Amino acid sequence: MGRRRSAVTIVDGDVAASLNVAARDARAASAQLAAAPRPLKDRALLAAAAALRASAPDILAANGEDLAAATGLSAAFQDRLTLTPARVEAMAQGLEEIAALPDPVGRTLAEWTRPNGLVIRRVAQPIGVIGMVFESRPNVGADAAGLCLKSGNAVILRGGSDSARSSAAINAAMVAGLREAGLSEAAVQIAPTSDRAFVGAMLRAAGLIDLIIPRGGKSLVTRVQDESRVPVLAHAEGLCHTYIHAAADHAMARAILANAKMRRTGVCGATETLLIDAAIAPTLLPALVDDLTALGCRFRADARARAIRPELPAANDEDFSTEWLDSVLSIAVVDGVDAALAHTRRHGSEHTEAIVTEDAEAAARFLNGLSSAVGLWNASTQFCDGGEFGFGAEIGIATGRMHARGPVGLEQLCTYRYQVIGTGQIRP
Amino acid sequence: MGRRRSAVTIVDGDVAASLNVAARDARAASAQLAAAPRPLKDRALLAAAAALRASAPDILAANGEDLAAATGLSAAFQDRLTLTPARVEAMAQGLEEIAALPDPVGRTLAEWTRPNGLVIRRVAQPIGVIGMVFESRPNVGADAAGLCLKSGNAVILRGGSDSARSSAAINAAMVAGLREAGLSEAAVQIAPTSDRAFVGAMLRAAGLIDLIIPRGGKSLVTRVQDESRVPVLAHAEGLCHTYIHAAADHAMARAILANAKMRRTGVCGATETLLIDAAIAPTLLPALVDDLTALGCRFRADARARAIRPELPAANDEDFSTEWLDSVLSIAVVDGVDAALAHTRRHGSEHTEAIVTEDAEAAARFLNGLSSAVGLWNASTQFCDGGEFGFGAEIGIATGRMHARGPVGLEQLCTYRYQVIGTGQIRP
Repeated sequence: MGRRRSAVTIVDGDVAASLNVAARDARAASAQLAAAPRPLKDRALLAAAAALRASAPDILAANGEDLAAATGLSAAFQDRLTLTPARVEAMAQGLEEIAALPDPVGRTLAEWTRPNGLVIRRVAQPIGVIGMVFESRPNVGADAAGLCLKSGNAVILRGGSDSARSSAAINAAMVAGLREAGLSEAAVQIAPTSDRAFVGAMLRAAGLIDLIIPRGGKSLVTRVQDESRVPVLAHAEGLCHTYIHAAADHAMARAILANAKMRRTGVCGATETLLIDAAIAPTLLPALVDDLTALGCRFRADARARAIRPELPAANDEDFSTEWLDSVLSIAVVDGVDAALAHTRRHGSEHTEAIVTEDAEAAARFLNGLSSAVGLWNASTQFCDGGEFGFGAEIGIATGRMHARGPVGLEQLCTYRYQVIGTGQIRP
Repeated sequence: MGRRRSAVTIVDGDVAASLNVAARDARAASAQLAAAPRPLKDRALLAAAAALRASAPDILAANGEDLAAATGLSAAFQDRLTLTPARVEAMAQGLEEIAALPDPVGRTLAEWTRPNGLVIRRVAQPIGVIGMVFESRPNVGADAAGLCLKSGNAVILRGGSDSARSSAAINAAMVAGLREAGLSEAAVQIAPTSDRAFVGAMLRAAGLIDLIIPRGGKSLVTRVQDESRVPVLAHAEGLCHTYIHAAADHAMARAILANAKMRRTGVCGATETLLIDAAIAPTLLPALVDDLTALGCRFRADARARAIRPELPAANDEDFSTEWLDSVLSIAVVDGVDAALAHTRRHGSEHTEAIVTEDAEAAARFLNGLSSAVGLWNASTQFCDGGEFGFGAEIGIATGRMHARGPVGLEQLCTYRYQVIGTGQIRP
């Protein structure tokens, strides 16, 4: 680590130095926050919510400057960057909802007694210092700060440089909340520089930062996953499948697919590919295509699907590996559960897959055969969401193999330690 | 990842290619192993144990060749490298013990029902492909292979090149077990080359290998932690503290310290530093020093301890950051729980610390103030061990902040996924 830090210094000394200072302050704040009782953390969250409301004019003015400076950006980007009174209010309410959630710190996750009388207790504790790297949406910073604060973690927020003024105004409200609760203001920090090198310094800060959470497009997340020396919780993409099994209820399949694909097309839990059993495709596929066409969806279909609906555009192999995030559905006809599993393994992103069937055995075979973070039986893939899971809020969705998978909420922002209670035991 | 792999190819093409083949075969084997029912896995373990016994002569012969080739090595190294009939039998018994342990795969870790009727189930599943990097002790390979097999993970074992012949002979027995159970022989593989570059290729194999577990000295583990692009579970050192609080029972403190320091001095859970409250030091420290001196221990003491026992050698700051792994104890006199916590934070390795006291409030303050993986109250630090925790066996001890901390057993070799059971729910 020492070597890595000195390497950073050679590359970009000032930026690395500012990261080192921010991380050292965050480490000290995290020790205080880890020991902070729930009322103190909730008080900081509620005070921050009040501060957000009180400073809404300043936040909107800062956001206006960001928007004025952000020229030549796509309409979608402009929309993500734009704050409105309603969006500021939503941020404040989000913090109040986090305050109302149970404290994840200090929970006894497991406890057992050994034959020698030792009582072994696994207890939840904060992870420590979290680095949050996100893109243009400034409200992501407030949500992440609230979740980190409640879970006892210090956080360093590095948002998109286009939203720097908005992020600073929002952070001022978060810091006001910490101050009112008597908690260290270093518990929630924003990058002191918009220099892109600061992200690189964060990713090299093993030992200084305990976890990196990237939120944004595939290119950002992939860069973070490729470069980070710090553990990462993230998903690069959500290439989700809905598999309609031969024994599916037709009406249920039509309702679930329409929701899974079209409720919101830009979310990571949106279905991108329909897999449908050959036995049911001739009777059901036309209705599914008509339903989605009426909702404005377009298609990429394999040869077997086009044999049933010849007017569908042909899909190439690449289409099945594409996360459309749009009103587009890839369609493949398959021969049973194993073929559906093989397709998801080959093209999927281990995010979320659903099976629609009345056959419990087929459902179990599908769910047990998946390695994806979330598998659903007779439900829409769009349920992959921290709120829908009952976590109250989420900081992101993880598709890696370690620590946490699926929605990452307060409990997943904790690690654990053991507390062993003895009466003088020594080891033979 | 693609970029990283091609980068490997430029550096050392053949080695990287052989790693890629091994990892691809391991991935396929891991899918089969993840779905394998317990009886099949246990059968493979028991058959491997039988094969180890049957091939003991070959294993010992191969080990003899390794020892003959290993010239100019320390006595300690020679001992770690040496296999005996007893050590081969211990390996076989170890596999039988793992077979007797419960299957960690498929456990329901949590289950709840949402207001909309969705049943959400968090289910344990294997991590996937594990890369094990260890040094000269060949039996580590058998233990690790057994734990990975039982937990449904494929493993690529890269032992020290000095033990290559021994490792190959042991691996033949593991593969014989897999074959007899009808499981893929690629589930347990050893590095096809003793080229050191193979380790580097493993550490760069993000996406091909899911987890790296290094077992060995600090230099090996630190190199792995510094270079790995793959998540790592490990501890670089175990700089463990025993803190004797003012309200400690004297007899208990003497028994615990003697055990924590001297039972075995070379294990990571051995106490390296004694912290003792100033209030109790004048009366208790002399007895502690006499006890340990009689057991052959030497000392490095701070000024306040030397004021009580002037003949003790003086400790410098570096001594308190040194993992002796030997009959040496650093001693510091402190003023209460917070001072003891501050010392462990400054010098410790977040591995294991113990407090000895009759004061429950002080014990709670100490245990809750620790960020170490394991904290003990009135027990020896040498209890930090998977067997002592009731895990049956451990593949290592982790001191990082993510996934698992403390002893890493079968349950910690699993990750989880969600299975969501619906009745046609769509998201509003």
